Amino acid sequence: MKAYVLKAKGNAVFEDIPIPHIEPRDALVRTTAMAVCTTDIHLIETAAWPRAIGKVIGHESVGIVEKVGSEVKDFKPGDRVVLPSAGTDWHTPHAQRGEAKYYQNNNPYFSDDPTVNGNFSEYMRVIDADMRLAHIPDAVTDIQAVMVPDMMATGFTGIERMHVQFGDTVLILGIGPVGLMGVAAAALRGAGRIIAVGSRPKAMALAKHYGATDIINYKNGDILSQVMDMTGGKPVDSVLAASGGTASAVLTTAMRAVKFGGHVSCVSLFFDEDAVSIPLDVWCNGGMEKFLTGVLCQDGRDFFERLLALVAYGRLDTSPLVSPILHGWNSLEKGMALMRDRAPNVIKPVIVID
Amino acid sequence: MKAYVLKAKGNAVFEDIPIPHIEPRDALVRTTAMAVCTTDIHLIETAAWPRAIGKVIGHESVGIVEKVGSEVKDFKPGDRVVLPSAGTDWHTPHAQRGEAKYYQNNNPYFSDDPTVNGNFSEYMRVIDADMRLAHIPDAVTDIQAVMVPDMMATGFTGIERMHVQFGDTVLILGIGPVGLMGVAAAALRGAGRIIAVGSRPKAMALAKHYGATDIINYKNGDILSQVMDMTGGKPVDSVLAASGGTASAVLTTAMRAVKFGGHVSCVSLFFDEDAVSIPLDVWCNGGMEKFLTGVLCQDGRDFFERLLALVAYGRLDTSPLVSPILHGWNSLEKGMALMRDRAPNVIKPVIVID
Amino acid sequence: MKAYVLKAKGNAVFEDIPIPHIEPRDALVRTTAMAVCTTDIHLIETAAWPRAIGKVIGHESVGIVEKVGSEVKDFKPGDRVVLPSAGTDWHTPHAQRGEAKYYQNNNPYFSDDPTVNGNFSEYMRVIDADMRLAHIPDAVTDIQAVMVPDMMATGFTGIERMHVQFGDTVLILGIGPVGLMGVAAAALRGAGRIIAVGSRPKAMALAKHYGATDIINYKNGDILSQVMDMTGGKPVDSVLAASGGTASAVLTTAMRAVKFGGHVSCVSLFFDEDAVSIPLDVWCNGGMEKFLTGVLCQDGRDFFERLLALVAYGRLDTSPLVSPILHGWNSLEKGMALMRDRAPNVIKPVIVID
Amino acid sequence: MKAYVLKAKGNAVFEDIPIPHIEPRDALVRTTAMAVCTTDIHLIETAAWPRAIGKVIGHESVGIVEKVGSEVKDFKPGDRVVLPSAGTDWHTPHAQRGEAKYYQNNNPYFSDDPTVNGNFSEYMRVIDADMRLAHIPDAVTDIQAVMVPDMMATGFTGIERMHVQFGDTVLILGIGPVGLMGVAAAALRGAGRIIAVGSRPKAMALAKHYGATDIINYKNGDILSQVMDMTGGKPVDSVLAASGGTASAVLTTAMRAVKFGGHVSCVSLFFDEDAVSIPLDVWCNGGMEKFLTGVLCQDGRDFFERLLALVAYGRLDTSPLVSPILHGWNSLEKGMALMRDRAPNVIKPVIVID
Repeated sequence: MKAYVLKAKGNAVFEDIPIPHIEPRDALVRTTAMAVCTTDIHLIETAAWPRAIGKVIGHESVGIVEKVGSEVKDFKPGDRVVLPSAGTDWHTPHAQRGEAKYYQNNNPYFSDDPTVNGNFSEYMRVIDADMRLAHIPDAVTDIQAVMVPDMMATGFTGIERMHVQFGDTVLILGIGPVGLMGVAAAALRGAGRIIAVGSRPKAMALAKHYGATDIINYKNGDILSQVMDMTGGKPVDSVLAASGGTASAVLTTAMRAVKFGGHVSCVSLFFDEDAVSIPLDVWCNGGMEKFLTGVLCQDGRDFFERLLALVAYGRLDTSPLVSPILHGWNSLEKGMALMRDRAPNVIKPVIVID
Repeated sequence: MKAYVLKAKGNAVFEDIPIPHIEPRDALVRTTAMAVCTTDIHLIETAAWPRAIGKVIGHESVGIVEKVGSEVKDFKPGDRVVLPSAGTDWHTPHAQRGEAKYYQNNNPYFSDDPTVNGNFSEYMRVIDADMRLAHIPDAVTDIQAVMVPDMMATGFTGIERMHVQFGDTVLILGIGPVGLMGVAAAALRGAGRIIAVGSRPKAMALAKHYGATDIINYKNGDILSQVMDMTGGKPVDSVLAASGGTASAVLTTAMRAVKFGGHVSCVSLFFDEDAVSIPLDVWCNGGMEKFLTGVLCQDGRDFFERLLALVAYGRLDTSPLVSPILHGWNSLEKGMALMRDRAPNVIKPVIVID
Repeated sequence: MKAYVLKAKGNAVFEDIPIPHIEPRDALVRTTAMAVCTTDIHLIETAAWPRAIGKVIGHESVGIVEKVGSEVKDFKPGDRVVLPSAGTDWHTPHAQRGEAKYYQNNNPYFSDDPTVNGNFSEYMRVIDADMRLAHIPDAVTDIQAVMVPDMMATGFTGIERMHVQFGDTVLILGIGPVGLMGVAAAALRGAGRIIAVGSRPKAMALAKHYGATDIINYKNGDILSQVMDMTGGKPVDSVLAASGGTASAVLTTAMRAVKFGGHVSCVSLFFDEDAVSIPLDVWCNGGMEKFLTGVLCQDGRDFFERLLALVAYGRLDTSPLVSPILHGWNSLEKGMALMRDRAPNVIKPVIVID
Repeated sequence: MKAYVLKAKGNAVFEDIPIPHIEPRDALVRTTAMAVCTTDIHLIETAAWPRAIGKVIGHESVGIVEKVGSEVKDFKPGDRVVLPSAGTDWHTPHAQRGEAKYYQNNNPYFSDDPTVNGNFSEYMRVIDADMRLAHIPDAVTDIQAVMVPDMMATGFTGIERMHVQFGDTVLILGIGPVGLMGVAAAALRGAGRIIAVGSRPKAMALAKHYGATDIINYKNGDILSQVMDMTGGKPVDSVLAASGGTASAVLTTAMRAVKFGGHVSCVSLFFDEDAVSIPLDVWCNGGMEKFLTGVLCQDGRDFFERLLALVAYGRLDTSPLVSPILHGWNSLEKGMALMRDRAPNVIKPVIVID
């Protein structure tokens, strides 16, 4: 079968590899749509996770179940499904405390097992299908669904960490596709004012579409000053850090913008610094409370099916994120190039396998 | 000034009483709009709270600040404000633990102080204005704002007690104005499917407007059976009990419909029984978890201003609840009659004082 | 092997049955100590769960791993372990939301599978060992450990549901072994005053030992009056219902004793009524908040190992609960008779298999 | 009356100033015991908060109510009380959301009002007595009680921010008096293993007394290595940062020691750096969750009275923290010198005014 394999730093190619074998709890899923992610591009450019070399890459896809192992209970051939984006191992006592996701044993980039691969292939073996696949409701298209496992899941997890209350003012730093889903999640969690920060016209329009009430263009001046001008100097209730830039710059802005007692969630990945430097005065030298954390995308069937329910019941439409739609395996590399170059109207390229 | 006073059981009349005196932390507010509530009607019919006799009744109103006491910091004459619907005393150490609202010392129906009155008068003294009044944003009309202090506040408090998660299925039993605000709150808290139960066509249409995905008419058969038919027998994640009927019937339906680990919030007031009887098997004889509580409307400036922010930023429009709009003090009793008789298109009568 | 089997209502006997077969994720454990529970006695007397007929009964035991299946990672022959008391199936998406325990597929009393048995046998097959067994630290004896899977787990789960804050006043209704563990758990969660209600001298002494500051003998008069006399009429912050009596009587006392905003957790099982009847005025006819729930014992390796850590690090000693200690299979029925008759110094009989 | 006044940087002296006037909601309290704090010493040395100049300093004291204003309800002359350590203004809508403490309008070091003074004087005016004083139970001595408003309150607030679960492993970095109260709080919140880090023999002995199960001497090598040796390389569930050193060093150790999903609470104040620098890999470049915050001591009557209940009911004894006990106003400066020099057996000097 066709698969997109990382051979070495800077070198990923299509290869023909065998269709995977599945174990009793696994499913084999035929890919019908894939999304490309900046993480894929970063991985190819840096080979930052050495265990990924020699493996299929990619982590956002949907498909149709081709066959299932003998112990799979809730999925059968023909089912439309969202595949896992992360490698959470649910069979650990940490799962009993809600901490499964910190154990990424099924993640191809962390696993020593050469048969644990990423999503960019004609067929994918999904370990522990009953826990890790998610049924796509009839009302949800593949195009909508492929935005769920990472874009929507990451944005929504980030907002969950911010403990939004009805009517809160929320600041979203960065409106790439994850930040846009953060906007939607904040609105669906009951935020009042949502201030979104970006610069690309299409992203700004989408931010409005998803519920931003105010837009700041960071090219027009210091972000913090613009926020404070907007609020009359009042700090915001919580901040989602979802932008590029250095960790030190982004998190300093976030920590300065947020109120005492407020939360800052960081869904960005930063690679330009070894350490993040935050002025001590944001915490009054340690004696004041502002809550800061990185965020790991929640995955798993329960969460994904709840997110899909939001799409199915019309709470939000993820399809406007998808731009452009490409067709066929040959367009995968084009999709990645568009993502890397951030062409004007590109938000999230999706490759449909017809 | 004109005031609507409960003289005795079954007897409420307009009287001319003095404009209230205010203390340093108080404000005097001139009424511009009032809403009538089934609680007012129940109170007149039963005089259930004896301390209310001799006092002005009513608890939902908005107005304009006429004057403020010397210690009031954040309000001034001319400000448009929502008045408190409840009598929470914020000056108690219980407030430090989030339990102020259980101390209703400023509630006219519970207080021995004859100067602590309800809202249906030309001017109202608001004790502790900085804590209990709420500024109405320019973008919010009086008609919208007068739905905030009880209808929206009660519905939203009820939903907060249900710990809705993204994509949850929520059942709303009863779609009077509070139940309708429960529908809106569930949608704004991230529910997926929202099943609303009612029978009046206008209320059903409003339930859809506020985000219900499915409507059940209780005249078409047993509610629980209809819910289970809809969900394929799967219990719902949480239930808001906001309907009439007996407590035993309503809460039994709610407790049967909800999943283990789910929450039932009751915002209804029941007067037909002394005790509520719930089958023990809903808890498996005590050994299973379903969380049940009555709900007291949250009030206070912080909460009200956050609810008003939701209206101001367009997250929901409360004005469709208001029906009909009446004008002038002379129409107050007509509004109450409409509410009592539940005339076909009546949801929540509001009296505007021009 | 020797096993204690429920043949029919009123009839449980020792039988010689085959040593169970194990699957790849299972372990076979040799029993070294068992505790008898009122639930066992109730089951024999009533055969309330028909699927239990023909099966080994019992649910509290510790042992030594005899062998493990090929996929078991964290246990090996010779390991001292606590066995599961409940039948939680961790391999369900509900586990991803913290709701696994509501899915008792591995519970012998609920399962259709005749090979899913209880704990009173020489060897027990433990399904999904890595998730359901718990390692016993060297510092913890078998006698201490056998109090963990139900007595300590149930009492501690009940207290977790009560959201105890530092310095709270907690009422424990009933000081059988679960109620006593509720006392200990309340103290370890930061309660200040702990009022325990019982009548048996040994239980009262143990309640003091575990941290009760005040003891009420329910034979001395109405419980609620005694509590209110003690507190000067102030309601308590939360209540653990862990006593006998009818559900209506116990929960009415609990709901009257607790403050508005307080929590009532019920760990008792009630069989004398079909329905629980609670006066509506405890909730002010629906409009006030008091949080009520039944409680299902949390199980699973993560929780059990954390409870065992409390014993290992000396936070509490469970061994005083054990009384008497009996020896050998022949004493199992004697242990049950002692529990049933609540002989004066009997708290929790344990049978050691030497 | 006698008062200890900050005249300028490096210069604090006793002065004779008038006994304060009180307003209707205030109380006048005669000091009976005071504790000295490193914050006092830092303030004198640096005059870091310029508004403190010209004011009485000090923030830990207990006393006897001398007189109360006309609106004070719950306190009367002769009552033994803990005075507020912080300047929380409870009369703000932020209090309605649990955020009052971020509004320190009654704090002498932040307030422009020259009549808002600190605690080191014969009599102190306590603004808003019903909300800010706390009754000392008869069972609690002055010596015990004077440890409550800052040492116990800060340590216990820090632990509350860490979301300790039953049986958790907790790391306490630093066992000065606040860290020691952190040890006690962790034990009273249900921690299993508690690893405390210090170097002074008396502090180490007290850490054991308050519930530490393991002690690390930071003079014996790298703290992180010692922790990991102890746990077999397993990260801890949560960390209280309560030590000296630089913020970058302390918080890096804390963030490396804590598990993914774990919490780090910082109760230290750091003055040696302008910014804290934390390696990005502790968060996996932003994509992993570790929760970090500074901590502001909770105050207010509700919290203080709950802490006092813990002492009254014997859950912990704060008096071993007090060392030495000095007598009379003349010994205040000696107490400060002892604290500054960290003499071998000095934990927390208290000055008793007989």
